[in-house]
Amino acid sequence: MKHNIHFLPDDVHVTVEDGENLLSAAAAAGVYIHAYCGGDGVCGKCKVTLENGDVESDSAASLKKGEYDKGVRLACKARVVSDITVRIPEMVKADGKALKCAPKTTRAISARSLDSLIGSWSVDPPVGKKFLKIPPPTLEDNISDMQRLMRALKNANPDSLEPSYDHPELIHELPLVLREANWDVTVILLHGKGQKEPDRIIAVEPGDTTDRLYGLAVDIGTTTCGGVLIDLNSGEIVAEGSGYNAQIGYGEDVISRMIYSQRPGGLKGLQGKVIHTINNIIEEVCKKHIISPSDISYIMTAGNTVMAHLMLAINPKFLREAPYVPSVSQFPLTKAAGLGIMAHPSVRMFLYPCISSYVGGDIVAGVHACQMQKSDEISLFIDIGTNGEIVVGNKDWMVCAACSAGPAFEGGGIKFGMRASQGAIENFQIHPETYDPMIVTIGQTKPRGICGSGLISIVAELLDAGVLDPQGKFNRSLNHPRIREGEDRWEYVLAWDRDSMIGEDIVITEVDLDNLIRAKGAMYAGYQTLLESVGLTFSDLDRVILAGNFGSYIDLERAISIGLLPDIDRDRFFYIGNASMLGCQISLTDHKRFRERVAVRTLMTNMELSENPDFMNHYMAALFLPHTDMSLFPSAKK
Amino acid sequence: MKHNIHFLPDDVHVTVEDGENLLSAAAAAGVYIHAYCGGDGVCGKCKVTLENGDVESDSAASLKKGEYDKGVRLACKARVVSDITVRIPEMVKADGKALKCAPKTTRAISARSLDSLIGSWSVDPPVGKKFLKIPPPTLEDNISDMQRLMRALKNANPDSLEPSYDHPELIHELPLVLREANWDVTVILLHGKGQKEPDRIIAVEPGDTTDRLYGLAVDIGTTTCGGVLIDLNSGEIVAEGSGYNAQIGYGEDVISRMIYSQRPGGLKGLQGKVIHTINNIIEEVCKKHIISPSDISYIMTAGNTVMAHLMLAINPKFLREAPYVPSVSQFPLTKAAGLGIMAHPSVRMFLYPCISSYVGGDIVAGVHACQMQKSDEISLFIDIGTNGEIVVGNKDWMVCAACSAGPAFEGGGIKFGMRASQGAIENFQIHPETYDPMIVTIGQTKPRGICGSGLISIVAELLDAGVLDPQGKFNRSLNHPRIREGEDRWEYVLAWDRDSMIGEDIVITEVDLDNLIRAKGAMYAGYQTLLESVGLTFSDLDRVILAGNFGSYIDLERAISIGLLPDIDRDRFFYIGNASMLGCQISLTDHKRFRERVAVRTLMTNMELSENPDFMNHYMAALFLPHTDMSLFPSAKK
Repeated sequence: MKHNIHFLPDDVHVTVEDGENLLSAAAAAGVYIHAYCGGDGVCGKCKVTLENGDVESDSAASLKKGEYDKGVRLACKARVVSDITVRIPEMVKADGKALKCAPKTTRAISARSLDSLIGSWSVDPPVGKKFLKIPPPTLEDNISDMQRLMRALKNANPDSLEPSYDHPELIHELPLVLREANWDVTVILLHGKGQKEPDRIIAVEPGDTTDRLYGLAVDIGTTTCGGVLIDLNSGEIVAEGSGYNAQIGYGEDVISRMIYSQRPGGLKGLQGKVIHTINNIIEEVCKKHIISPSDISYIMTAGNTVMAHLMLAINPKFLREAPYVPSVSQFPLTKAAGLGIMAHPSVRMFLYPCISSYVGGDIVAGVHACQMQKSDEISLFIDIGTNGEIVVGNKDWMVCAACSAGPAFEGGGIKFGMRASQGAIENFQIHPETYDPMIVTIGQTKPRGICGSGLISIVAELLDAGVLDPQGKFNRSLNHPRIREGEDRWEYVLAWDRDSMIGEDIVITEVDLDNLIRAKGAMYAGYQTLLESVGLTFSDLDRVILAGNFGSYIDLERAISIGLLPDIDRDRFFYIGNASMLGCQISLTDHKRFRERVAVRTLMTNMELSENPDFMNHYMAALFLPHTDMSLFPSAKK
Repeated sequence: MKHNIHFLPDDVHVTVEDGENLLSAAAAAGVYIHAYCGGDGVCGKCKVTLENGDVESDSAASLKKGEYDKGVRLACKARVVSDITVRIPEMVKADGKALKCAPKTTRAISARSLDSLIGSWSVDPPVGKKFLKIPPPTLEDNISDMQRLMRALKNANPDSLEPSYDHPELIHELPLVLREANWDVTVILLHGKGQKEPDRIIAVEPGDTTDRLYGLAVDIGTTTCGGVLIDLNSGEIVAEGSGYNAQIGYGEDVISRMIYSQRPGGLKGLQGKVIHTINNIIEEVCKKHIISPSDISYIMTAGNTVMAHLMLAINPKFLREAPYVPSVSQFPLTKAAGLGIMAHPSVRMFLYPCISSYVGGDIVAGVHACQMQKSDEISLFIDIGTNGEIVVGNKDWMVCAACSAGPAFEGGGIKFGMRASQGAIENFQIHPETYDPMIVTIGQTKPRGICGSGLISIVAELLDAGVLDPQGKFNRSLNHPRIREGEDRWEYVLAWDRDSMIGEDIVITEVDLDNLIRAKGAMYAGYQTLLESVGLTFSDLDRVILAGNFGSYIDLERAISIGLLPDIDRDRFFYIGNASMLGCQISLTDHKRFRERVAVRTLMTNMELSENPDFMNHYMAALFLPHTDMSLFPSAKK
């Protein structure tokens, strides 16, 4: 169910989901409401008056009895449950004149309604189960147990190729399982790699277990690992889990992990840590859905090239040294239990192939998810994480590159940076005259820090309000208490200590801004270099696909206004969130889609940007908000 | 070089190889020469007179000076080196009349000149090497090491399918090997199973090692294991080795091994023993040819079903219990090192598939060697060993069966039975009037015992001379010192203690004869039952192919005269010796021939004889020398 909100006095109309937070809705609509405490209900600034309709609202200590009766509500504590009209109180200057704050143009793109990109997929997983009632042997018919099993399978699927078997333990277990189960067994089949390859029997279970068929999709991030448990009979996600990659104790980024891996026992140690992380996820999702880890029949994973090497304990030494060569790019289909993963010994783990040292399986999975390899349209695929990875191409060709953008958009190198979790500032507006902030946090709590989407909002707003200049320096002449010289050069106070969860002022500093500018500059220079290498410009792009952990949506206008994304037709942009995980989910559910990954890997050609002079020139030119060449950003020029 | 021998007075002509022993040559030609000591030169009975040509001869203590000068030689110490005429001294009775001893009709079929059966084969082994000089990576071309290797391989073989790799260790070793070898490496390739399957890289070695490519063919017998080292570049056999199967300490036959395997640790213990035996063979052949075991790139093996199960430590429990079901019939292509075999970790061991509990991979390999699966002609394939296995069919169909013939032809259940090795009586004649023996042993030493071919000769000769009746009982009325009542019923003395190597009389007893009659009776009943099951008779057979460890030849007339082989046109018989080993050798050398094994396995249908009433009837009727139904043996009738 959806509801309309009519904001007065600016006459802004928006449609929101039932139960949407009113403060978040206003922020997303570009409507400014005074709000200091992130939505925790304590600062009492975000009062609005309900003129029509109703909201659900907690009794707010900050409201007087009379106010409530007159329809006054704290926007941050109001949930929209019907069509409403709300009036934002006008603020007045000392001279009594109203403070003007025109609503902003926003363009939130969310990771929904992506059918045109991702398409649909079937429930036809790479692994299947078949229940068989096998006639027992007699003197007249005493072929071997394995042959008998295969014959029964062939009889059950007369049109299929003769299956093989591919699990050494099976030859030892099969005779006992068959007899214990009185010849009624369930076969677990691994489908052939190609369409002409026969199925392989990987396990045989007593009785009929066909109703228990699960797969696990795992995204192995440098910082966080996430897992999704899928019921492979229905294709539904039945549980999710996640956790920090336990390798983090050996270094925050891939470089420090690679260095650690060269110490005695380092490689095995790092492998053990990520396996431990995956085992925790398995435990978590199995507990949530009340199944046994042995009911999981396939594990589909993707991670960057360093993570993949460490997972398999392949020495990453040569990834780090020029000319940056992975040992392997197509990883073998590995027995998960052999790596220490809590799984039945027959269960295979697939790791998406990588392209180069810094364009990994997570990118291949992402590109695969959005079917670039099947489209005539030319797409620019961007994954913004600790590194930025870029892919341009269509069904006929693809080039890709990684640019060491740095982790600013994941909260790294930002004084109060954090990942998108409870208490992170995810949306922000500034009053153009008072320079006071409107802060919205994830979970509507007091702010703890700033996540990627918050950072984009903050920088875009500060720039738009003239608090910040295009070089990322604060306007020293504004003489406002929130703009001050701090420990790390100048800074803007987003939240005073009394309004913050951490008991200190939360600020954004010029050092933070330098890091952000370098990050977005590297990304933009990457797009340019890659496009030029194939003789294209931004206007040739049919689609720009943005992937990354920005939460449920990203504000396009703001991302463009700081120069993170190119200034082209907004309708061409898509945001798909965690594309790597999405690729794993699709592949795990649909074997035909899974097979199509081969085309992605085959098409992609890597380009090294690290020592490329064109890239360096573009990068230098992009160290400005939005860019030194304003002709590239016509919207900002206006 | 060959030489003609003209035996007088019986005017027998034969052609022999240069250096052939004169006593052996006489025996093979059916010419009787008095000889007690097996050819050791001590009994001095086998004196012959050279009338023309010359022989090489050791100075023999048993000859007087005058005799030697007159051309007298000991046949057992004479090697034929030119065309010769020799006179056998006539023996005279007490009354001065000559003792008559007409030459016998013999028909030695040897394991040579088998082209029509086995055909030729190419040197195109299932594993190959390729030397590659790989361009090192650069910033412009930094695909992964594995991709680089595959690309170089593809460039070297542009017409081949894209290879894969199939050795988990390779992903860890490859980067170091490539760099240590300065990018000049030799790839070991395992060819695809089918013609459309790509090659698989299983190992990479620094430098150019293409001149060292070896394969090992191993025949895993219940009693003896044999190995042949083949240079896979030339296809030549370069070394041979053999040894007793060390499992023998846990039981002489497969039944006792299966029983032992059910004890705690029994299965692993038996596996360890046969692996140890194979390792000894590897050591032996590598020492002979001065190579390292790691230069062996493929191991091709065949053994009976029990041996195959024990090799892979698959519990043989159900092989022994009705309805006699193997756990697996097609064994996985196994990493030899994983079983403890002294081989490079990447080396695969192929085990020929079995058909049923008692028709094993040795039979499949044998049938495969003689290309029954490609011939229009109907063949009867017989392997006489501890068990007798029989296969009838052609390129369109095959039925097979095992009959528990017992080990008589391998020396088991025979008082002085032994395997075909030094000192074994391998040929025998009896003087039709004096009942004195002509004994020829392997290696021309004093006799130690009787091997399979000796046993056939002895029984055939005793029967022909009337010393033995068709029920296997000695003629008690002959009143000859060699025919006497012994510990185990009646017996014939083949060698007196003074002429034997073991210092005691070597005899053949009626108990031995019972065992032999049961063995040949089971075989013959097997042929009949199997032929009847497909509506055929012996006259429908185009070929009879006899396999077994009878040494270099078998005497067809004698084998027929005791009822071991059917009495049909002699030209239809072939003797191919160790067919299992031959199959392994061919498969190891020629990949195309190797692939054809699939047809053999697919065609063969097993028939259980153990509880078959037809078989039991035929068996009872065959407990006679040669048979109760003499119409089946027209030659003997005459």
